[in-house]
Amino acid sequence: MISCPDARGIIAAVTNFVAEHDGNILDADQHTDPGENIFFMRLEIDPQGFGLARETFAAAWRALSERFRMTWRIHWADEVKTMAILVSKEDHCLNDLLWRWRTGEHRVRLAMVISNHDALRENVEMFRVPYHHLPVTEENKSAQEAQMRNLLAASGVDVMVLARYMQVLSPALVSAHRERIINIHHSFLPAFAGRKPYHQAFERGVKIIGATSHYVTESLDDGPIISQSTTAVDHRDTVDDLIRKGRDLERVVLATAVRHHLQDRILVSGNKTVVFD
Amino acid sequence: MISCPDARGIIAAVTNFVAEHDGNILDADQHTDPGENIFFMRLEIDPQGFGLARETFAAAWRALSERFRMTWRIHWADEVKTMAILVSKEDHCLNDLLWRWRTGEHRVRLAMVISNHDALRENVEMFRVPYHHLPVTEENKSAQEAQMRNLLAASGVDVMVLARYMQVLSPALVSAHRERIINIHHSFLPAFAGRKPYHQAFERGVKIIGATSHYVTESLDDGPIISQSTTAVDHRDTVDDLIRKGRDLERVVLATAVRHHLQDRILVSGNKTVVFD
Amino acid sequence: MISCPDARGIIAAVTNFVAEHDGNILDADQHTDPGENIFFMRLEIDPQGFGLARETFAAAWRALSERFRMTWRIHWADEVKTMAILVSKEDHCLNDLLWRWRTGEHRVRLAMVISNHDALRENVEMFRVPYHHLPVTEENKSAQEAQMRNLLAASGVDVMVLARYMQVLSPALVSAHRERIINIHHSFLPAFAGRKPYHQAFERGVKIIGATSHYVTESLDDGPIISQSTTAVDHRDTVDDLIRKGRDLERVVLATAVRHHLQDRILVSGNKTVVFD
Amino acid sequence: MISCPDARGIIAAVTNFVAEHDGNILDADQHTDPGENIFFMRLEIDPQGFGLARETFAAAWRALSERFRMTWRIHWADEVKTMAILVSKEDHCLNDLLWRWRTGEHRVRLAMVISNHDALRENVEMFRVPYHHLPVTEENKSAQEAQMRNLLAASGVDVMVLARYMQVLSPALVSAHRERIINIHHSFLPAFAGRKPYHQAFERGVKIIGATSHYVTESLDDGPIISQSTTAVDHRDTVDDLIRKGRDLERVVLATAVRHHLQDRILVSGNKTVVFD
Repeated sequence: MISCPDARGIIAAVTNFVAEHDGNILDADQHTDPGENIFFMRLEIDPQGFGLARETFAAAWRALSERFRMTWRIHWADEVKTMAILVSKEDHCLNDLLWRWRTGEHRVRLAMVISNHDALRENVEMFRVPYHHLPVTEENKSAQEAQMRNLLAASGVDVMVLARYMQVLSPALVSAHRERIINIHHSFLPAFAGRKPYHQAFERGVKIIGATSHYVTESLDDGPIISQSTTAVDHRDTVDDLIRKGRDLERVVLATAVRHHLQDRILVSGNKTVVFD
Repeated sequence: MISCPDARGIIAAVTNFVAEHDGNILDADQHTDPGENIFFMRLEIDPQGFGLARETFAAAWRALSERFRMTWRIHWADEVKTMAILVSKEDHCLNDLLWRWRTGEHRVRLAMVISNHDALRENVEMFRVPYHHLPVTEENKSAQEAQMRNLLAASGVDVMVLARYMQVLSPALVSAHRERIINIHHSFLPAFAGRKPYHQAFERGVKIIGATSHYVTESLDDGPIISQSTTAVDHRDTVDDLIRKGRDLERVVLATAVRHHLQDRILVSGNKTVVFD
Repeated sequence: MISCPDARGIIAAVTNFVAEHDGNILDADQHTDPGENIFFMRLEIDPQGFGLARETFAAAWRALSERFRMTWRIHWADEVKTMAILVSKEDHCLNDLLWRWRTGEHRVRLAMVISNHDALRENVEMFRVPYHHLPVTEENKSAQEAQMRNLLAASGVDVMVLARYMQVLSPALVSAHRERIINIHHSFLPAFAGRKPYHQAFERGVKIIGATSHYVTESLDDGPIISQSTTAVDHRDTVDDLIRKGRDLERVVLATAVRHHLQDRILVSGNKTVVFD
Repeated sequence: MISCPDARGIIAAVTNFVAEHDGNILDADQHTDPGENIFFMRLEIDPQGFGLARETFAAAWRALSERFRMTWRIHWADEVKTMAILVSKEDHCLNDLLWRWRTGEHRVRLAMVISNHDALRENVEMFRVPYHHLPVTEENKSAQEAQMRNLLAASGVDVMVLARYMQVLSPALVSAHRERIINIHHSFLPAFAGRKPYHQAFERGVKIIGATSHYVTESLDDGPIISQSTTAVDHRDTVDDLIRKGRDLERVVLATAVRHHLQDRILVSGNKTVVFD
């Protein structure tokens, strides 16, 4: 994954580099943001036959990356990310992620589920996944987060998924995991940001509801959007119907965002995402 | 079309009334808003064989409507509404409505097109529809609206469609045509209300854009929503792409709202619509 | 739920009947098939205050139903249907139904899961639902079905859901459960009927895939369609991608059909459904 | 646009070639069909500063294209394709294409409209586009096609769009314009191929209808699919409603296919398309 100021010859330089090291390109995608003049690229290289390895890649790559002032990262196919799921009381997104993890649709190590409630313990433990109940009160908020950070660090968690976790994370925690915390918001943001979006949608009388997954930033409900989806509603739908229809949107939208993240398909540019799907 | 406080026996009373006058019910739909406790009903009666006519209906109906404190209206199948289209420079919604009018998909008398620009005159006059160019300046705003009101009144216009008309109508004009002015807004309201919604959507990096048709109220972009639709976009889409994709949404969403209005399928309840489709 | 030859005055007669017995109509929907001239109606009556009960309803209703030659059924709100899920090796539809049952989204008694494989036993038993492994060979087919019928009868199963059950049921079994067996087919029928629809779709190069839930009839993949949904695909999608995307369609389409069935919202007319949603 | 047997180093070789001739790559997309082992690539090069021109490109490019056994074509940005629209009596797709041509959304020279009926003459001539009425009878079929071919050849037509043209073209005509005739079929093919698809869909009781645009081949309704879209219907929709809803699908699906073709975004591989959108 590469991003850098746009310039002539980047694609040629990069693909040459790969060819010189006997790499076979399985997939390549690029995008230039014309407003910001930033170039983005995603290359998938067959590890079979590729002449560089984890130890030798960075040194070989340095000259090229400096020449184009690249921000880059490489993900080796034999590495698997480590994920933690945070949840409150709603179980639909949690169950969906558990199922995709268990069936191998999402290739990830699921280290733990953390919740500020104890309600979903059995639901998680029956899959033999550790469940940590870390209650939140007004007083213990920072202590609770410290506990959480210890747990995450101890398991080497790469990515946190807020699967309807109804607590706001501190700026410190967010900034320590920039572009590695994925949230699901139960509206088509930026409409109905904040609390009780289905109630807001009902009050406003919209004919469409939606769900939005985004990276968490210090600015609530305002991080870079990864995936969105909508579905039709009408005057016959009560708030409960919106909530029910929304659950089916939320879990698919969140799962899509998580899959793109796990497959290293997302680059963030300012407050937007480039998703090479 | 009926709305009234909810009570037992309304449907029976109404359908009895129809049966007593030899009416055959072609279509019936009802809805109860549980929050407001208001009952809504739409009945379509075959005029063939119905024992009441334009002159006799109101008197026969009075007792029933007073008993349930109904707000009601009846639309006789041989009546056709009269429509005016207001437009500025964008022609896609206008052309779409012209085409649906000309092919008979929308059963309506199209009295005129009014524009604050002269750009679309030829486009309209080739369909032999009167085109009135009423320019707007900061000074002449109320005079221009007076002209417009005279034109509308002279032709007996029932319904005004703002097919991308970029001027704000005065509260007086709006309140004189309550629930009879339909606007298209080029976003999935309430997201991106106001000006340049596609630019706002691009800046925010949403993955979905939409369009919304609504009745115009004194409160800009905030009237009862009639129809909405959305479509997917991604990082490759420029503002121009959003505008292009949005045009195809806007014209279908607006046409849907206009059709429902022309067929008397919409009841307004507070700031929401009940659309019996 | 009522269906009968269309005639004047049915709605009035039915709603009068309800009013005479102090019934409050919560929801009413009707439809007339103009080709077949059949009238369909669904009424939801508040049990609170309704003057008829399980024991007295049929006698009171008889005259009316005979007058209009009605086919009718009534579902009392305190009754819950009993469901069996049939499954082979794919778990996504099964898990989805288990989750909706467990959270109460689907109000149903789940009597058992039957499978021709033993693969999903743990998956089911951890929810404390009986799992019956009834293997199928070419020789034992009718014996296996006899076993199945005994199990279903013993538990009083009302509705069978084929949640990716890859065996064809015998005509005898099907006709004994007419309009009470719901299947999910992993294509937008009638396209790609039969086996391996995602492979067929890939070969044909379609840009859209779908899923279809329908009542099972003697004619394979040809029963009355209850619900369908589609999603976009493109040249980058492999067969595995189609299968993955399809899973998310299938489970929502099947769940929708099951919910409509459990809520008694479906009337079958010839080879079509009327779904009062 | 390039297609060739897959091999290592193609992207590097091609992008090097561009860089050596001072080309700036505006957009690049590639795809490998893993089953057929064919590599597809689309490159968009800024003509500004590019060192090769119409006269010199082929010679410079030859070595590379032979080395990888490429099938390729180049489209120079200052060239505009020439289009003919064929139509029978339905005007919705025709009008849509006329509008997109007139507003410049589709950058194309519109040479003529050909119809086997005279019904849409005024509709076309008011845009000052030549309208050729070539009636078809059982006897004159080949003579009519000869006339058509003369007209197309005389105007240098590159692409023919069948905008609801209800005549089957001869294999000779089709094979002379391979991958240059775009048809709209009013169903989600392969469902409901052949005549009266909306009637077929109504009879089958589907809950979704669709439209499909494809390149015309000798095998009717079976050419490579370019674009598809679907929309929901239900038991309340008559055949006329399906036709009305379908019109809005058809014109957008056909317009999308035409736009991709005009922008040289489509490669055909066997009976499938790769659409670099």
